[in-house]
Amino acid sequence: MKVAFIGLGVMGYPMAGHLQRLGHEVCVYNRTTARAQSWVAEYDGSLALTPAEAAAAAEMVLLCVGNDEDVRAVVYGEQGVLAGMAAGSLLVDHTTTSALLAEELALRCAGQGVNFLDAPVSGGQAGAQKGTLSIMIGGEEAEVERARMVLGCYGLRITRVGHHGAGQRCKMVNQICIAGILQGLAEGFTLAKASGLDIQTVAGVLGGGAAQSWQLDNRATTMAAGEFDFGFAIEWMHKDLGFCLQEAERLGLTLPMTRDVDAHYQALMARGLGRCDTSVLIRQFD
Amino acid sequence: MKVAFIGLGVMGYPMAGHLQRLGHEVCVYNRTTARAQSWVAEYDGSLALTPAEAAAAAEMVLLCVGNDEDVRAVVYGEQGVLAGMAAGSLLVDHTTTSALLAEELALRCAGQGVNFLDAPVSGGQAGAQKGTLSIMIGGEEAEVERARMVLGCYGLRITRVGHHGAGQRCKMVNQICIAGILQGLAEGFTLAKASGLDIQTVAGVLGGGAAQSWQLDNRATTMAAGEFDFGFAIEWMHKDLGFCLQEAERLGLTLPMTRDVDAHYQALMARGLGRCDTSVLIRQFD
Repeated sequence: MKVAFIGLGVMGYPMAGHLQRLGHEVCVYNRTTARAQSWVAEYDGSLALTPAEAAAAAEMVLLCVGNDEDVRAVVYGEQGVLAGMAAGSLLVDHTTTSALLAEELALRCAGQGVNFLDAPVSGGQAGAQKGTLSIMIGGEEAEVERARMVLGCYGLRITRVGHHGAGQRCKMVNQICIAGILQGLAEGFTLAKASGLDIQTVAGVLGGGAAQSWQLDNRATTMAAGEFDFGFAIEWMHKDLGFCLQEAERLGLTLPMTRDVDAHYQALMARGLGRCDTSVLIRQFD
Repeated sequence: MKVAFIGLGVMGYPMAGHLQRLGHEVCVYNRTTARAQSWVAEYDGSLALTPAEAAAAAEMVLLCVGNDEDVRAVVYGEQGVLAGMAAGSLLVDHTTTSALLAEELALRCAGQGVNFLDAPVSGGQAGAQKGTLSIMIGGEEAEVERARMVLGCYGLRITRVGHHGAGQRCKMVNQICIAGILQGLAEGFTLAKASGLDIQTVAGVLGGGAAQSWQLDNRATTMAAGEFDFGFAIEWMHKDLGFCLQEAERLGLTLPMTRDVDAHYQALMARGLGRCDTSVLIRQFD
């Protein structure tokens, strides 16, 4: 299928690569053209100089950029993908955005007969590289089915969770759960260290019971070693928790732990740790 | 081996049963004698009317009671196990207690040549029944090895984590991690419900990624259904978090999430929910 992929960051670059490798005809656009040229050199797809140009011949346009404003910048306007998309084509946004943007995009797309899915992913850079992402989707069931074969090139679990915006709301739940898990690990391991316990030994014991988590299994070693130079950057997590708190406020909810963890992340960013993995939360106790 | 088991609650009853079933000669003591009589009728061990009497012939004495005061009540005094234990025998406390009590018991035992291990467990009632508990132990390495065959009757993972008190401190880390995980689930699922998402569907998606946890895998269904009439009661969790906060204060640490979750549990107890499973934390948002 002819597809366009907009945004070749740490996630988008390998995702677009899987598409081309598995037989789709991929035209890419990236804000920094040099990176798009590298991608073309590696995967042998084609390159466009504007989002609209990339989208022009595509049946399906996939986005994976940074934040709400980045999405608007590549979707709207004369050079945006919507200017290039034909009626009946499908726009899929893999960016983690606000739920309101997802609803706005769905409306704007519908206005010109384009279908839309909000489809944030989890699984991180490793998941994008291995093609084992979880994709949580909001939108029409028929469009999800139509997209499934394409998304399956890099997604292992592809789940429709509801109407437009539901994909983003599901991703928020994901980030809130991670915030709680990491704050628990941060406080628990801080107590462990101060008590003279060996974190690896403790993690081994806890991993067999009701305190088990993916984060415990995958982050205890690096947290014990004080290594945070990898993974999912807290400046992205802060962006995502902002969406959670915004959505909670809109719904009249107070999420105290989410709010507090976000404040801890902001304090860590102020200390210059914004690019560190989310597990750097333990350094709130330095 | 001749062993004594003190405390036949929801944990101790099946644990003592495994010992007798696997060939040890178990003498039990329980504060409510009728329950000890039921145990003897079921497993065919023997019954003592005081802790000292149960301990008199035992090479190893195992405790699993409620809190620090309950432990002191069955260990000290004329009728306590220490009055009955011979020099060279071993006392193992499976109760979750303060770390200071563990250190106190180790000293008091040493005073009469008795060895001591603090050995709290995780895995809950189901783990006790299936004999698959995780046991985290503080004390001398040689004593841990001596106890291993007996503890293996109901423990799947038996790990020495350090000196006397380290078992209790490791259990604290376990409970802090669980508190964070459950607060994340409580906030995340509250947002999900308010957004009209199906919690089971969301849990299915999240279980494949970085938000995965034992609690998500095992409590999403019951949290979605509002069922909390089982599992680990929050009044016990409140007791355990109290030990964590006490230990943190002693070490000059502030554990903000642990403190907040404990406050949420206290508020839920004030609403009469003290016997509910820890996952009832989601009802803080009712």
